[in-house]
Parts: sequence; C-alpha cells; structure tokens
Amino acid sequence: MATHAADIVTAAVLVIGNEVLSGRTQDANLQYLAAGLGELGIRLLEARVIADDEDVIARAVNECRARYDYVFTTGGIGPTHDDITSAAVARAFGVALVRNPQVVALLNDHYAPDTVNEARLKMAEMPEGARLVENSVSRVPGFQIENVFVLAGVPSIMRAMFDGLKHRLEGGLPMLSETLVARLPEGVIAEGLAAAQARHPDVEIGSYPFYREGRSGVSLVVRSPDAASISAAIADVGAEIRRLGAEAIDEEGDS
Amino acid sequence: MATHAADIVTAAVLVIGNEVLSGRTQDANLQYLAAGLGELGIRLLEARVIADDEDVIARAVNECRARYDYVFTTGGIGPTHDDITSAAVARAFGVALVRNPQVVALLNDHYAPDTVNEARLKMAEMPEGARLVENSVSRVPGFQIENVFVLAGVPSIMRAMFDGLKHRLEGGLPMLSETLVARLPEGVIAEGLAAAQARHPDVEIGSYPFYREGRSGVSLVVRSPDAASISAAIADVGAEIRRLGAEAIDEEGDS
Repeated sequence: MATHAADIVTAAVLVIGNEVLSGRTQDANLQYLAAGLGELGIRLLEARVIADDEDVIARAVNECRARYDYVFTTGGIGPTHDDITSAAVARAFGVALVRNPQVVALLNDHYAPDTVNEARLKMAEMPEGARLVENSVSRVPGFQIENVFVLAGVPSIMRAMFDGLKHRLEGGLPMLSETLVARLPEGVIAEGLAAAQARHPDVEIGSYPFYREGRSGVSLVVRSPDAASISAAIADVGAEIRRLGAEAIDEEGDS
Repeated sequence: MATHAADIVTAAVLVIGNEVLSGRTQDANLQYLAAGLGELGIRLLEARVIADDEDVIARAVNECRARYDYVFTTGGIGPTHDDITSAAVARAFGVALVRNPQVVALLNDHYAPDTVNEARLKMAEMPEGARLVENSVSRVPGFQIENVFVLAGVPSIMRAMFDGLKHRLEGGLPMLSETLVARLPEGVIAEGLAAAQARHPDVEIGSYPFYREGRSGVSLVVRSPDAASISAAIADVGAEIRRLGAEAIDEEGDS
C-alpha cells in the first residue's frame, strides 16, 4: 500500500485566544485535536494561536480553509463582548450573521426563561447556512460552515464537540507510528539515522532528543501509513542502535 | 500614560515540529515565551505550529518577520536529518548556509575530539551573518539573524537561550493585568461586562469561563499598560459582580 496524494487529507487548527498569547493559560486543545485527527487519517499540518480580533480571525480562516481540507477553530463563541469568532467566520465567508431559531429554542429549554438575555442569545448567532455542532456538555452548540468547524475553547466542551462531529469527517490513510528509545546522544546516532532514512524513503523518521536523570537520550519515531514499511525501517533503526552499543527500547503505548 | 502605536512592540513564535502536529508531544515552549515576552513589554500576537518542511518554514519565517518586530522559532536545530530549521531560515533570508568557525571551536571543546562527526558539525551551520545565541545548558548555540531568533526545541535549552538573549530585545510598554474570579455563569455577567468595557475603552476586558467542582465560574481579566486604568476598570467589574450577588475574588499571583 503506497501513499498517493489523493489519500492525504489535511487540516489546520486555529486556537483563538488572547489568554494563550499572553501566557496566562496553556492551550489544552491542540494535542487532543492533533491525536484525534491522526486517528481518523487526517494530517494536522498547521496550527495557529491568534488574537481575539475580527480581522485577524477572518484572515486566518480564509487562508487556512483554502489551503487545507478541514479547519477547526477553538474559543470565542461564548456570550461575552470578547466572543467574536462567529462574527469573524461569517465575515470570512461573506455571509450574514443570523440568529439560529434552533439554538434559540435550545437556549430557552436549557436556561430558566427570564435568564435568556441578549448576551445568551448572542450564542445563537451563526453565519447564514451554518450547520450545528452538538455540545453534549453544556448544550450551546458550535457550528460547521463548509469545511470550517467552530468549537468551544473550554477543553471539556471542545472535546465533546469534536468527538460528536467525527462522523462528518472523511479521513485518508491513517498515519501509523512506532517509536524506539535509545540512551544515546543524538549526535552519535545521527549519521546512521540519515542512512536509514535514505534506505527507507517511504517512511518519515523523526528524532527527538531528551534529557532525563542527567543522561541524554533520543526517541526515534518512524511514521508512515504503511505498517510493513514501518516494521522494516524500525528493524533497521534498531540494528543501528545496537551497533552503537545501546539498547533499543520499544516505547509503550505506541502502535 | 496612554498607549501609543509607537510603544507597541510585537512578536510571533514559530513552533517547528511534526511531533507537536501529530499529537505525540505537547508544546512546552509557547507559554514560557509568551509570559517572558509580556514581561519585557513585547506582545505576542501570533504563534504557529508548523511542519518540518523547508518550504513551509521559510514561508512562515518570511511572513512573520515582515509582520512582527520579533520572531522566535523553536526546534529543528539538532544534528539529525530532520533538523532543517537553519537551512530554511537561510533560504528565507536568501543567504548562504555557512559553517560558523566559533561554533566549530565550541563543538571541538565540548565533545571528545573523535566524536565531532559530520552530523554534529551540522549544528555549526548557520545563515551567513548570523549572531550566536548562547546555550548555557548544552553549549551548542542558537542564532539570531536580523529580527529572527532561532532557538532549540528541548524546553530546558530553549528557556536558557531565551533568558540569555533577553537583553537584546527592546520592549515597549509592559502589559499589566488584574483578574477577578466570580462564581457566576458567563451569560449572567455578560451584559454588565460589556457595559464596563464600553466605559473603560482604554483597557481590554477578557472573560474566561471555567467549570470546577460542578459549578460554573468566570475569570475576568483586565489588561492595559496603565495600572490606574486597570484599577478603575477592576473596581467597576467588582461592583458589577457584587451587584449580581456574587463575591469578587482577587486571583492570586496576579499583578
């Protein structure tokens, strides 16, 4: 099984939030989306953290929806004045921002009637033609317009939304990976590794150094949609590690 | 003290690494850079996670160095075949990739003589005209070319490099912030908050909902370079929280 361009499905993630750019909070959504997309055979090729600014969001959405098969945004769809993602996405698509009657009904059902104020009704505003993305945690939905999925920023809600929309995504060949860990400095194995990469051009060999307990080591990750190609390259990399007098340790939890 | 455009110094971060895009690892550098830049009065306006691909890296470097005052890259400067950041940055600037004699001397000094192989010498390759960025952890330096700083991806090394280069950066007005936490749903305080934002156009009020111990709450962050403007807005926001029957809790550790 070889990789054909047509089998490769791509995605970008836009993390919308001044709070991540200010260093106030650590993004907690990207890794979940990256891993989840990978399982579906969708390759996350870019992620951007951008400011709560309508121009900036609209520009990033348009750049990414043209460049990738899918775009996922997180953050900025709540009821407050700084939640401007929906308006920005409507602008990016050149469509009106309209109040979705289905979401209005949902809000009236979810909140006590006299608490459905104008701020909460703002959460029903979506680009014309948007399709809802269910929120099984706190009800108020996200939405999809063409290849762009607009999700919440609160991690528990974002995860539920993503898990609930997976069936709408069409994946390509899932990327598989296997990892060997060696207690060797990267510089010692680098040449053998480059040779292994040259002998196995159908896989991608990544080398990630680490320092633990005062010793340097390296995680060698072999990735490909093809399990047999991975096995062949891993055998080769493992032999190289042993040739250098070290042990090749299979990383747990890797497929 | 008002904010003038001339006082605003901006930055972007490029996290270079397939391992972050595959979900294999969680980025551990962005928040450190974001917070450190903020303390220097430099506003991080964008961060991108991009693939280990020379074209992609060169394009992102060129887009960001034109758009922002400073650009920081992390990752891809080691000795292995997948470390291509230096070559990509040289290409972005249209200059040659040359072996820096100072770094070669450093490598010969740091490693046993017979272990300074071609792979390790690759770490001495930098764009022509680059200035070294010191690495107090494992010696092998990063580099600066014009407004672009190329740093390691291993967090302990990245941090040491960033801390060591801070004196080269010229900051603007530091952004200050103060946070009040209220055990209120965002939708309840949204309207009062929008009114407070309208009364205090010189600050930025951010609203970040959370769910803890089964109850919803919100962190309200007031940001501005001007401490007096923050105090005035915080007093206003605090009064609104109390008007709604909740307690306004000062977040610890905030300035």
